[in-house]
Amino acid sequence: MKQLGEIVFVGLGLNDEMGISLQGMEETKNADCVFMELYTSLMPGFSLSNLERMSGKDVTMLSRKNIEEENAEKIMAAAKKGKAVFLVPGDPMIATTHISVRLEAEKKGIGTRIVHGASVLSAVIGLSGLHNYKFGKSVTIPFPEDTPAETPYQTIAQNRRLGAHTLCLLDIKVEERRYLTIPQALEALMDTETRMKQAIIKTDTLAVGVARAGSKTPIVKADAAKRFLTYDFGGPPYTLVFPGKLHFMEAESLIRFAGAPEKLREEAE
Amino acid sequence: MKQLGEIVFVGLGLNDEMGISLQGMEETKNADCVFMELYTSLMPGFSLSNLERMSGKDVTMLSRKNIEEENAEKIMAAAKKGKAVFLVPGDPMIATTHISVRLEAEKKGIGTRIVHGASVLSAVIGLSGLHNYKFGKSVTIPFPEDTPAETPYQTIAQNRRLGAHTLCLLDIKVEERRYLTIPQALEALMDTETRMKQAIIKTDTLAVGVARAGSKTPIVKADAAKRFLTYDFGGPPYTLVFPGKLHFMEAESLIRFAGAPEKLREEAE
Repeated sequence: MKQLGEIVFVGLGLNDEMGISLQGMEETKNADCVFMELYTSLMPGFSLSNLERMSGKDVTMLSRKNIEEENAEKIMAAAKKGKAVFLVPGDPMIATTHISVRLEAEKKGIGTRIVHGASVLSAVIGLSGLHNYKFGKSVTIPFPEDTPAETPYQTIAQNRRLGAHTLCLLDIKVEERRYLTIPQALEALMDTETRMKQAIIKTDTLAVGVARAGSKTPIVKADAAKRFLTYDFGGPPYTLVFPGKLHFMEAESLIRFAGAPEKLREEAE
Repeated sequence: MKQLGEIVFVGLGLNDEMGISLQGMEETKNADCVFMELYTSLMPGFSLSNLERMSGKDVTMLSRKNIEEENAEKIMAAAKKGKAVFLVPGDPMIATTHISVRLEAEKKGIGTRIVHGASVLSAVIGLSGLHNYKFGKSVTIPFPEDTPAETPYQTIAQNRRLGAHTLCLLDIKVEERRYLTIPQALEALMDTETRMKQAIIKTDTLAVGVARAGSKTPIVKADAAKRFLTYDFGGPPYTLVFPGKLHFMEAESLIRFAGAPEKLREEAE
């Protein structure tokens, strides 16, 4: 098949237009066409006009509809003729929808490359001070009116049985400006607890709430779940971690970096 | 406690000096002192002189000994007087040794911040086209003369029972310029298989080998493990993924992006 143009998926990293890598900015400056989406993650400090000024490019913002229903046809059309850069929050392929775009491009004979960016996954692990290799499967907690929290509940339960931590992303509906909050996510899990009764999410279960990972004002707070029902984390986006067994250094990190109760030391290994 | 200066941990991202974020570069330019380490990960394209030129700063390279045995005392001394930037490959807190540095700083009353960078963890997930939420615990495969591969073997087995994928980092000894290769890692796992006999790593087990994630020449190859024993992945660093159950889109991705055998489609769900 004749090689056409290419799509370069560029990760924007976290929070704002300063999260992109130098490589990603170079690719953007050299692109024939630049596209972007902001619906798979919230970047609370992001300014499109700053990015356009810094890159010297007009950036076409795409909606979920443009990408998922219209099969990213605007990007494909541009990439048949030259180099299209597609700017994506975080690390580009963590949102599965972009894997579909990449598959579609390759089927059409369009080359693809990835310029990676910081992801909320490693950022939250890093901010918490918990050890990366102790995290099991991660999961997204959906809005309770869409789906009950049974999959997240079971994932946390499964990880807990293995002593592993669980990282939970909290669902967002950017087009409606709605972001599941930490209290809402905990209520959804506690509601599931009343039905599943496996004693996984109780009022005194240790949780770590993270708000605005990657921004200049992240909040990282470790405490009994019940305390989060009234705690003010400020603006979105939010993430929750349910720790499994703690290494003593992890307990120390949660106490120092996340204000966890000192008695956590006694429970660590 | 009186607030002293601060340490800003800045992620360098992957491969070379262009992997740092714009924010990370700003922090470096504004630092009073800049330190760096390159022993927790290999950045094959990295040039210290380029970084120094781009940032306008002298960068002090620290060894494992400087950080782990001497408790990063050079960074601590600088951070008592002003702003010390500590440049770290990938996303800074994924290497647990840097969590220790952060703990030590906070105990001394030195503030800490993190500027995140792209991590090999999300990069490899992205390059493979496998779905992030299907990865279980990740693990490092050690040099066989140091430690047999029993922990990685058991982690892969545990994830496999849950249908989850396993991401394996391959150990490095940068100061000796030694990098565990994909054939060596597989041999270590196959050797463990002969002792543990759980039929986890067989010659026809599907594996995904990734070399130089985040560089301009990454190799991503999916095939039966035995084929990797003679496959040339080029230079380090290396990563291995052992997939669990595959979604049909994941099978499609491995076929398109990693040259997996077409028959993989029949085994997917």
